[in-house]
Amino acid sequence: MTALQKLLSIVALPDAGAEVEARRRLDQLTKPPGSLGRLEELVVRLCAISGACPPSLRDPVIFTLAADHGVVAQGVSAYPQIVTSQMVENFLRGGAAVNVLARHAGARVVVADLGVAAPLPSHPGLRSSKVAPGTMDMTRGPAMTRAEAVQAVEVGIALVEAERGRGADLVGTGEMGIGNTTAASALVAALTGASVESVTGPGTGVDAEGRRRKIEAVRRALEANRPDPADALDTLAKVGGFEIAGLVGVILAGAAYRLPVVLDGFIAGAAALVAVRLKPGIRGALLAAHRSSEPGHARVLEDLGLEAYLDLRMRLGEGTGAALCISLARAACSMLNEMATFKSAGVTGRADQSGAAG
Amino acid sequence: MTALQKLLSIVALPDAGAEVEARRRLDQLTKPPGSLGRLEELVVRLCAISGACPPSLRDPVIFTLAADHGVVAQGVSAYPQIVTSQMVENFLRGGAAVNVLARHAGARVVVADLGVAAPLPSHPGLRSSKVAPGTMDMTRGPAMTRAEAVQAVEVGIALVEAERGRGADLVGTGEMGIGNTTAASALVAALTGASVESVTGPGTGVDAEGRRRKIEAVRRALEANRPDPADALDTLAKVGGFEIAGLVGVILAGAAYRLPVVLDGFIAGAAALVAVRLKPGIRGALLAAHRSSEPGHARVLEDLGLEAYLDLRMRLGEGTGAALCISLARAACSMLNEMATFKSAGVTGRADQSGAAG
Repeated sequence: MTALQKLLSIVALPDAGAEVEARRRLDQLTKPPGSLGRLEELVVRLCAISGACPPSLRDPVIFTLAADHGVVAQGVSAYPQIVTSQMVENFLRGGAAVNVLARHAGARVVVADLGVAAPLPSHPGLRSSKVAPGTMDMTRGPAMTRAEAVQAVEVGIALVEAERGRGADLVGTGEMGIGNTTAASALVAALTGASVESVTGPGTGVDAEGRRRKIEAVRRALEANRPDPADALDTLAKVGGFEIAGLVGVILAGAAYRLPVVLDGFIAGAAALVAVRLKPGIRGALLAAHRSSEPGHARVLEDLGLEAYLDLRMRLGEGTGAALCISLARAACSMLNEMATFKSAGVTGRADQSGAAG
Repeated sequence: MTALQKLLSIVALPDAGAEVEARRRLDQLTKPPGSLGRLEELVVRLCAISGACPPSLRDPVIFTLAADHGVVAQGVSAYPQIVTSQMVENFLRGGAAVNVLARHAGARVVVADLGVAAPLPSHPGLRSSKVAPGTMDMTRGPAMTRAEAVQAVEVGIALVEAERGRGADLVGTGEMGIGNTTAASALVAALTGASVESVTGPGTGVDAEGRRRKIEAVRRALEANRPDPADALDTLAKVGGFEIAGLVGVILAGAAYRLPVVLDGFIAGAAALVAVRLKPGIRGALLAAHRSSEPGHARVLEDLGLEAYLDLRMRLGEGTGAALCISLARAACSMLNEMATFKSAGVTGRADQSGAAG
């Protein structure tokens, strides 16, 4: 049995007991029931997923996986391919947006090379798991072989397993890969049946002409490869990418080990679509950090049945949205852990519900 | 000249230079221009308001003002009046939601009694500035005299002036007052012309019958007092409240002294409507922390021309939304202060814009 098959055999459903306990505690706190809205819902989800109330949030980890995409040959990005490796070095020095926002949230960033085209200097912070130096151009054939896709998924699984061993108690997703919104658009179109045009956006900021090239590239990739939407691994291999496949593994592993999975934006959403098709039961472990301004993300969230916590018109990726949501999760946990109860504070309950104060 | 008149004479417009400098810096950071969306807009606003780039965010202060409302005699709240004073004591012990979320955001909470009905024990953390032990029942006559309303506004001004002297560099608004959504609904209806029904919601959570009583109370208050919407102080005195008037002062003072003003939810929004009518130029200093689930808040935000940063279906008040937004503001400032530039990180710029890397 492969690492992926083994992982897929693990069943981890939301814990109803922890969920009930979370709701019970929340309703004792000095506030009208439900008045902290989605902050309450968020901490209930963390309890249900992890099976613990209060949930642990000592060591949230954002997995920022990097890889390159052969489809950049079609002129689909505003930035040259070399930026992928340059940004990996930026991550390792702590100067990128995800580093800054992760520090703000008290989260670690784990940076992994799943398939960056340029050679990267060795660095103690870099997990080097290059499957190949970039995918093939999906407009001309499969981006990856099925074996490569599985290998990349298993890298993601192994990354989570290693960090779990170090104490990680929440998984955030992040990515870097020039061209990867094009791959994500192809995956989303293939898996959801949405029109290519509706799920292909400006990415890092291509102009109208660039967007037309992206749409054309996605159309050609789907025609050239005819991915089978009923076979998520086939679709992933043909029009995905190494970092996206790695995120599929990260998501599956997080869910299997009862670590809440905080999805970043559009690319993470595409990976989650694959993961959910491989194992529908993991849906309950997923949290949508934010709604990206990338137009296809709304369709992804709808398919996943998730409502994003934040909507700040962000479209950077890297795990930046996940980082902000982790900060919100910390706020939600503090609420559960630190607020006084009606009883402890001697505050009278609702006039119409005697006993609420108790 | 009174303290209020003096304050209203101060002109503090957004600083175009600091705004331009903020945008220039943001576009040098290692991310596609604009890709951090409203996080970028937020830090640009902080720079423009404070006149400094980067902005200072060392000592944000949430002003949580408390007072009681005579209109509770009409059965408009799910909680008895005594809860106002009990919650003030909870604030002083640090056990309320606003305390917890302010700690999370690295903000101080200043608690002031503007007009709590019950006597409060003296406490080093409590600013005692009681104008009267609760307003009169606005369904039978004015809630306050005009002199009382001005006095409460000036308490708010003095609170900000004192904290500014201690180093406060951002003002958040908070409040506590059983019955104060009813007063806020009356203010919003009177000042915007919106129908009473459309801006009167469940507040702390009254049922349909309770909401009918609220709507009826607001209607009777407006009929009994006939506030003049062209005279914001008249409207404030007749159907407002001491803590709402105090917040009008907090908002005006924050804007006058170039301290960004982070508005919490519906009650703060009603105070902001009064403040903006007293001095339209302050609009540029206001930030809407979140969109409350209280139905009238959307109308308030529309009138103020503000888009909320967060929408988490919260409806607690106290300053809880402001606290979460202050955390977001810290993230935004960290981005501006800590991210590498394309130049410092050696990252290549956009393929179509030579020089962007510089």
